[in-house]
Amino acid sequence: MTKIHPTALISGDVTLGQSVEIGPFAIVNGPCRIGNGTKIDSHCLIGEGDLAFGATVIGENCHIRSHSIIYFGVEIGHSTQTGHAVVVRAESKIGANCMIGTSSDLQGNLTIGDHTRLHSDVHLCSGSNVGQFVFIYPRATFTNDKYPPSETTCGPTVGDFTQIGAGSLIMPGIEIGKHCLIAAHSVVTQNIGDDTFVKGSPAKSIGNASDLLVDGQALYPWPKRFARGMPWYDALSSDPEKASPFE
Amino acid sequence: MTKIHPTALISGDVTLGQSVEIGPFAIVNGPCRIGNGTKIDSHCLIGEGDLAFGATVIGENCHIRSHSIIYFGVEIGHSTQTGHAVVVRAESKIGANCMIGTSSDLQGNLTIGDHTRLHSDVHLCSGSNVGQFVFIYPRATFTNDKYPPSETTCGPTVGDFTQIGAGSLIMPGIEIGKHCLIAAHSVVTQNIGDDTFVKGSPAKSIGNASDLLVDGQALYPWPKRFARGMPWYDALSSDPEKASPFE
Amino acid sequence: MTKIHPTALISGDVTLGQSVEIGPFAIVNGPCRIGNGTKIDSHCLIGEGDLAFGATVIGENCHIRSHSIIYFGVEIGHSTQTGHAVVVRAESKIGANCMIGTSSDLQGNLTIGDHTRLHSDVHLCSGSNVGQFVFIYPRATFTNDKYPPSETTCGPTVGDFTQIGAGSLIMPGIEIGKHCLIAAHSVVTQNIGDDTFVKGSPAKSIGNASDLLVDGQALYPWPKRFARGMPWYDALSSDPEKASPFE
Repeated sequence: MTKIHPTALISGDVTLGQSVEIGPFAIVNGPCRIGNGTKIDSHCLIGEGDLAFGATVIGENCHIRSHSIIYFGVEIGHSTQTGHAVVVRAESKIGANCMIGTSSDLQGNLTIGDHTRLHSDVHLCSGSNVGQFVFIYPRATFTNDKYPPSETTCGPTVGDFTQIGAGSLIMPGIEIGKHCLIAAHSVVTQNIGDDTFVKGSPAKSIGNASDLLVDGQALYPWPKRFARGMPWYDALSSDPEKASPFE
Repeated sequence: MTKIHPTALISGDVTLGQSVEIGPFAIVNGPCRIGNGTKIDSHCLIGEGDLAFGATVIGENCHIRSHSIIYFGVEIGHSTQTGHAVVVRAESKIGANCMIGTSSDLQGNLTIGDHTRLHSDVHLCSGSNVGQFVFIYPRATFTNDKYPPSETTCGPTVGDFTQIGAGSLIMPGIEIGKHCLIAAHSVVTQNIGDDTFVKGSPAKSIGNASDLLVDGQALYPWPKRFARGMPWYDALSSDPEKASPFE
Repeated sequence: MTKIHPTALISGDVTLGQSVEIGPFAIVNGPCRIGNGTKIDSHCLIGEGDLAFGATVIGENCHIRSHSIIYFGVEIGHSTQTGHAVVVRAESKIGANCMIGTSSDLQGNLTIGDHTRLHSDVHLCSGSNVGQFVFIYPRATFTNDKYPPSETTCGPTVGDFTQIGAGSLIMPGIEIGKHCLIAAHSVVTQNIGDDTFVKGSPAKSIGNASDLLVDGQALYPWPKRFARGMPWYDALSSDPEKASPFE
């Protein structure tokens, strides 16, 4: 049974699945489709901007936390969560099982793969393409305009499983490979191949991420040691030695 | 005809122009004057803080997007837009045709000239003075206290047409000239003359911005090649070779 | 007399002291105890997340500004203020007489001592421990995961009276002493003893903060020259030469 708070405002062509919950002082403007079991918390604004971008589509079992703003023309996969005061502009396609941290600002015209996690206050510029299983830490910033202001912007691309440290800045059009490790506060000015560990401003390669040893142990690729919320959680728990598909 | 949503709360001495729109769950506290054609979106708080700073004055054809907070004693010129969750504290004077990006935080006691654009999450400290046609990119931070904490703060000054890259930090009291280019992630610790291109931490001069060639072309001063939303838009479109007043 | 705006929503086990004010469109979910004279402004959400963390407890004479979000299991001392859109997650203990700036994001499982001030947009990771009389300037970021992603996070610790400059990044588990001065935009990668002045990325020691002379004067420890809002305000005002307990 849906639970729509009496103060919530629903208008236009809105389709709500079963057991959807809409919190107090929330606004849902159609066209909008919200999947079964999804929760929209208080003070949210769903359906903003230009109707020409089409419906806002939020999958099943999502949780959009309070004060968040999702534009028209955004598509969010099932089981994805946001923190508070997240902004997602038009033409954004976010995968399933993602987490988008508090105050993150997704400027639209971008894609995010499944199981990707943005921590707090991540800024993704228009044109960003982020793969699956990517983790981006607080206050990382993606940029898209090399000689501003211009009309020829190009967002960064990030490969699957890559970790982008807190406060990093990714320059326009940069391509970062899979399984990379970008140290905190790095400024990435050149393309980076798979499995590379970089740090600094401008970021320089320290070597392969998979060669990084801590107490004699290789910590990367990380899926062999971290599984919380990941599809290989059950497998890794039952046989930590070799359960991960990424061993 | 004004359109005030029935859930909006208007109190005190509020003067609304023609065709003003006030969205759901918005609050407008007087003294406040809002010009013709201006839209205040949902969940905004207009008129906050100390009444002693006087009225909040928002010009004609402005658009204040949702969850923004504008204090008493703020003056905003016509046709200026904000993103979401912008905060503007008292004694701020913002020009006409400006854009103030999502989550930007304007600490008050500051000025911003006409046609200036702040991208997302720009932090302007108290005492900042920003000229006309300035573009400031995401997460740039202005500071005003060199030996904190102190009672002798002094904000930065930025000349007309200057571009300040993402994640830059401007030190207290710094004066930046006109037509400068501050690379992303720079830390500006010294005054900078007109037409200077700087980068790094601390930022060092690379030369004149107007000497920067990309594919054999000088890109600065930028008004000769970029006109979207600018007063010379029609002129530049009709004669790209020499239309801009800044050629 | 309490002043609860008619649009505010109070539910569950909520105990309000005398003269408490709850603003429009605010939500207070119990269990929650709010002390005498405290103001909760509009669009706030008090009591969020998992009830298992227990009551939200806000002391006397606090001011929680609009659009802020305080979780269950948060304890805030008397006379503490927040800016707008602050988020404080569970298991946070914030002292008395603190100021938590606009858009600051406190990730929970952390402590902040009395009289400490966070300026705008400070990000404190889970596991942070911040002493008394600490000032943290805009956009400083605390991190807790050295080789992400992992399950073994450890937040930074900051000693009393330390000043952390704007845009600084503190690496996981770092311990910073008392009366330190961290320059703006520093990246602190090593533990720092008391009275140390560091700057850079990685931050390097410049010497003792108390040896820093400006115009021939030692500015640190700062309590001998700055008293606004501090317990030694009256003493310093009446005898600037030797009133501060920290002279």
